Amino acid sequence: MSDEDIKNSYKNAAQTMRGDNTTFGTKLTNEHSNDPNTHKDIHNRINVNYDSIEKSPGMEEVHKWQRQHVDKGDQSKENYPMNIIIDPAMREMYQVVHNSGMTNVFDRFSQQQPIQCKFCIEGLSCQLCANGPCRISEKVPRGTCGVDAHTMVARNFMYRHVTIGTSANIFHCHQAARTLKAAGEHPESGLKIRDPEKLKKYADMAGLNTSQPIEQLAVQFADWVMNDIHAPFHVESKTVEAFAPTQRKELWRKLGLFPGGGYSEVAFAQTRCMTNFNSDPVEFLLNAVRLGVANEYQGLFLLDIIQEILMGTQEIAQKKQNMGLLKQDMINIVTNGHMPLLAHVAIDLASTDEWQQKAKDAGASGIQVLGHVCEGQQLMNYQGTHSQKGYGGQEGEWLSQEYLLATGAVDLFMFDYNCTVATMPLFAKRFGTKLLSTHPVIKLQGTETLDFVPEKMKEQAEKALDKAIEAFKERKSQNRKVYIPPHVSDCTVGFSTESIRNALGGSFDPLIEQIANGNIRGIATIVGCTTARYGQGGSNIFKITRGLIKNNILVLSGGCTSSVMEYTGLTNPQAAEECGEGLKAVCKQLGIPPVLSYGACVDIGKMTHTAKELADALKVDTNKLPLVIGAPEYLEQKAVADACTAVALGWLVHVAPVPSITGSDVVVKTLTETTESLGLGKVVVELDAEKTVQIYVDHIEKKRKELGLN
Amino acid sequence: MSDEDIKNSYKNAAQTMRGDNTTFGTKLTNEHSNDPNTHKDIHNRINVNYDSIEKSPGMEEVHKWQRQHVDKGDQSKENYPMNIIIDPAMREMYQVVHNSGMTNVFDRFSQQQPIQCKFCIEGLSCQLCANGPCRISEKVPRGTCGVDAHTMVARNFMYRHVTIGTSANIFHCHQAARTLKAAGEHPESGLKIRDPEKLKKYADMAGLNTSQPIEQLAVQFADWVMNDIHAPFHVESKTVEAFAPTQRKELWRKLGLFPGGGYSEVAFAQTRCMTNFNSDPVEFLLNAVRLGVANEYQGLFLLDIIQEILMGTQEIAQKKQNMGLLKQDMINIVTNGHMPLLAHVAIDLASTDEWQQKAKDAGASGIQVLGHVCEGQQLMNYQGTHSQKGYGGQEGEWLSQEYLLATGAVDLFMFDYNCTVATMPLFAKRFGTKLLSTHPVIKLQGTETLDFVPEKMKEQAEKALDKAIEAFKERKSQNRKVYIPPHVSDCTVGFSTESIRNALGGSFDPLIEQIANGNIRGIATIVGCTTARYGQGGSNIFKITRGLIKNNILVLSGGCTSSVMEYTGLTNPQAAEECGEGLKAVCKQLGIPPVLSYGACVDIGKMTHTAKELADALKVDTNKLPLVIGAPEYLEQKAVADACTAVALGWLVHVAPVPSITGSDVVVKTLTETTESLGLGKVVVELDAEKTVQIYVDHIEKKRKELGLN
Repeated sequence: MSDEDIKNSYKNAAQTMRGDNTTFGTKLTNEHSNDPNTHKDIHNRINVNYDSIEKSPGMEEVHKWQRQHVDKGDQSKENYPMNIIIDPAMREMYQVVHNSGMTNVFDRFSQQQPIQCKFCIEGLSCQLCANGPCRISEKVPRGTCGVDAHTMVARNFMYRHVTIGTSANIFHCHQAARTLKAAGEHPESGLKIRDPEKLKKYADMAGLNTSQPIEQLAVQFADWVMNDIHAPFHVESKTVEAFAPTQRKELWRKLGLFPGGGYSEVAFAQTRCMTNFNSDPVEFLLNAVRLGVANEYQGLFLLDIIQEILMGTQEIAQKKQNMGLLKQDMINIVTNGHMPLLAHVAIDLASTDEWQQKAKDAGASGIQVLGHVCEGQQLMNYQGTHSQKGYGGQEGEWLSQEYLLATGAVDLFMFDYNCTVATMPLFAKRFGTKLLSTHPVIKLQGTETLDFVPEKMKEQAEKALDKAIEAFKERKSQNRKVYIPPHVSDCTVGFSTESIRNALGGSFDPLIEQIANGNIRGIATIVGCTTARYGQGGSNIFKITRGLIKNNILVLSGGCTSSVMEYTGLTNPQAAEECGEGLKAVCKQLGIPPVLSYGACVDIGKMTHTAKELADALKVDTNKLPLVIGAPEYLEQKAVADACTAVALGWLVHVAPVPSITGSDVVVKTLTETTESLGLGKVVVELDAEKTVQIYVDHIEKKRKELGLN
Repeated sequence: MSDEDIKNSYKNAAQTMRGDNTTFGTKLTNEHSNDPNTHKDIHNRINVNYDSIEKSPGMEEVHKWQRQHVDKGDQSKENYPMNIIIDPAMREMYQVVHNSGMTNVFDRFSQQQPIQCKFCIEGLSCQLCANGPCRISEKVPRGTCGVDAHTMVARNFMYRHVTIGTSANIFHCHQAARTLKAAGEHPESGLKIRDPEKLKKYADMAGLNTSQPIEQLAVQFADWVMNDIHAPFHVESKTVEAFAPTQRKELWRKLGLFPGGGYSEVAFAQTRCMTNFNSDPVEFLLNAVRLGVANEYQGLFLLDIIQEILMGTQEIAQKKQNMGLLKQDMINIVTNGHMPLLAHVAIDLASTDEWQQKAKDAGASGIQVLGHVCEGQQLMNYQGTHSQKGYGGQEGEWLSQEYLLATGAVDLFMFDYNCTVATMPLFAKRFGTKLLSTHPVIKLQGTETLDFVPEKMKEQAEKALDKAIEAFKERKSQNRKVYIPPHVSDCTVGFSTESIRNALGGSFDPLIEQIANGNIRGIATIVGCTTARYGQGGSNIFKITRGLIKNNILVLSGGCTSSVMEYTGLTNPQAAEECGEGLKAVCKQLGIPPVLSYGACVDIGKMTHTAKELADALKVDTNKLPLVIGAPEYLEQKAVADACTAVALGWLVHVAPVPSITGSDVVVKTLTETTESLGLGKVVVELDAEKTVQIYVDHIEKKRKELGLN
């Protein structure tokens, strides 16, 4: 197949989507779900035609096409979304869903565009109180209560994004700590302490007595973490004290940014967002940075450590990714979310002969648990799960979940945290998937939920596996159609502070040397989500990353960005060929790809850890590192909280799309300039991929110069 | 002055506002604050003409006019806002501010009306994620993420209103507990334990040892409260267990509505509001009710108790209200907000000869602390403050604060919590007031803030008084113009569970008897805020209350509604004349007004306490009482959280204006019907005052029938 053929193949698919091709020209109609009677006969009414899909070529050709396609730069509205979807499996399945007339994320994005509100886009609309809603414009410069544009924008930023994101990361850590405690107290729970050395190391830093039995230590450490999360806001956080860089702590104290207990901090911040309460915009923004500190040490950082204690510290490994890992004749369980606590016990069980036999008894060739979204990235990396028989691989990014269910091959879709879209019940009904929430924190309409009982994790996991077997039996008995896109990416994953240091022979010195000699100019973390926006959908991540590695910037990924890196081949050591000479040499020497996948968005905690270790090795504060944090397709509130963490740690944070803060020059200036002058980091917003790469390069070169490096 | 004269007088004032009268016809221009150079010469540029005000008649005539005016029913847009402002002082001062062309709450409301967004009004606009903002309509039934109208509306309701309001009430209680602890540990702080018996009573219910020294008990009880607020969400709340009605607790357990620690609960709820997280609308609403339980027992209920332990349990007293209490030759400190912790120490100090002498040394005839908004209501009621020399009375509702500063007579405006509008710095600059925040939770642009250090409350209060003296000296030295509207209302306030029971001779039996015999048909609490809306501005509260007492329904008030009751004469025993025969007889017999002011919005905790005692005396569950909760001009998030509390306790809650939930029939139905079928309360929305009265009457009669009462 020639390059031209590849292009044509994909072009046809794009045309199909636009209805140019009458064969597949089912026009997008109102979603079927609106009609309450829909579910009864939706199976019959929606005509799914798997045969009509424009099939993608093999992975090697796909990688070629992806590069040619994004170089061509077609990000136009006309060809949307086939011009931005570069995941070959998602491209195929989008056609199935779209042609069926079913609601789906890309089509919904298109539908929303004509009605997007300019005031909401700029943060200049407030719906807090009963005198409103109010909008601010030049002619009407204040809301009824009296807030100006700056206060309105900053307050919206805080309560819509930062407090929600911070809550979510800390809540996650809290659940992990509950699970660690259960592991210590209830050996029958199916939970294990897989990395006792890690537990000892951090318990020691917490000031606990590490010579006690490991189970007892687990309980003590878990309690120590939970007590800190639940401490009052006016008592300095013990976790921050124990784990944050010394110079940062001094700065935070000086600026009033050293937080107390995270939940109390969230309530403090929420209180300030009330109508007729705090109205100093800068105060809101500094408060957001303070929450960013709690978000890191009571959230990301500790949840990563606790999950690794439970599931085994991650290791570099060769793994596989994408929908091709589903197997028609197997019981396929996809576990989605961010908190793989129940999932890892389910994998333990599914890996036993007993459960494989149960699957065979149901007429399947076996049972496998696959991870989707960040949960999938994590499961792929943990030493305790990544090589087990019952584990099937990673499925994709959050945008692809509706399309994933449309394969008809997912028997059970389990979910525990964010990134489970509200339309899953429609897809589950249509394509025969059983849905199961494994934590009451997330409930979908008409969907079953398991209680979160870490003390009985094994029992809960058994329930889940039983449900999957039942669902498979139904699929078989109904002889339901299945189509599995054949795409599977090979990738090298599992990078983290420890695994990189081990790979380097036990010290960061070789990496520092490569940075010092200029082979590696610096490090960029490309983290966070993907969006359905024009020009994005993974494409922006892909374009920027290619530009960075060409400029000899080593990339760390975490979140849905990792999926993008995987399906574009950038986590494969072969991608060394796409790097500048310096980075290429390093990658080839070490046999690593130029994009080191740390895993999930919550694994940002591992990246900040690596950065701290590098700063310690260089004997500098974290803000001196030649490092940029990028979230080129950030989506939601955890990403905003994480950006606040990065600002607290002194880093340049690039974000796209444009956050809803442009209505206030004070807010924009504070976040993009003033914070840096205080010794904190700053935010930069840029939508163009080439300009973004240049911003990263310039910042890294500036930091190199400050460190005295050429 | 004849009735016709009164009406004409006010009519003229209204015309003035519309610019019909060329003498005062300064057109409303863009606010001056937009120009950064404004502050320099604003004093010269804005022409304040106190002489041009249409002066109000005396209070007796005002009361007559208020009744004639609202009976006439002119709530039109054309005559706004003079047709809805019924506070005589605010009427006068509105003219000053409006004619000066200064921004102010009523004029801002007018400016916002033409641009109000229908989607935002109905809750059908979401700005959470970077794929948005999204709007939902019939044609576009889902946001990009996939949420439908129901999920969007319910989620907006939760994160915009309920979590913020719950945080604020619990945070308030938390600060009160910190202060109680400081009172126990630091006698030099100026804090006192003024009601040790109350402390013992509730400490005993908490299971603490009450035979220890009172200071030690204060510390233990404070810690017990703070520990519960900071407990994990999955551990049942001890405060709820100790203080909630038994049958309610059973129901809450059954429905999964028994909360844990409040801050952890808020974080749990915030987490669920993330993009692609919980999408079951009913789950959001039940979660809101669960937060309502925490809002009550870790918020309202305990903050009231703790504040009374510190400031003295409230007592029935004759007090005075409105701007006429300002004195031109005195140092006037107005303390605003909801947390009169520093204020009550400042009143203690200001009541000493030492500080009165300092005031005289500065050229004043004395120094007085007046309370505004809910803080003013509380200070008026607490036994420890309400009769002190340094205490000056209550100033008004939240809408009047800009107009209050326009008197030029406020030397220091201290504030500690919500209901301080963002424009205060503009008014302070223009009219020579010193602004001072007394808790870092609230900061205004360019305004000084004292740290909240309960251990050093006296020192902090001294700082505040010193600042007031300095501000007065400046007023004197500049010989600034002052105009104080002469209006002062006489009112009987300080009602609460204890004070009513004491007045009844130590038991609720006489009240129950009056309810049983039908003289009192039932009880309505008219609580919450006032809004700037057409038909509201206090008028709706006034109209409904008059209708209720005519129907022999005893009214309890708390919040800005109390100010309305005070300036309309309804908290005066003379108002008995406006009641139906039964209630009139009771009021005359006891010498009480038909509206019993409990004080602040946070004193709703005292009303629920009274209701619980009545239910206990009747041996029924709280939802069986002939009781309606009304918030006829609710404004903000605490009011919404309080409504959730009322629903949890099984009560009918009337609200106006229409909350932003009308975009989802599922949400509307759940809150207005389904919750009641579960044994909870329900919400009813009604804008028309007469219809509202009928709804209350019907509900109370229904409940009477259920209790077997005629």
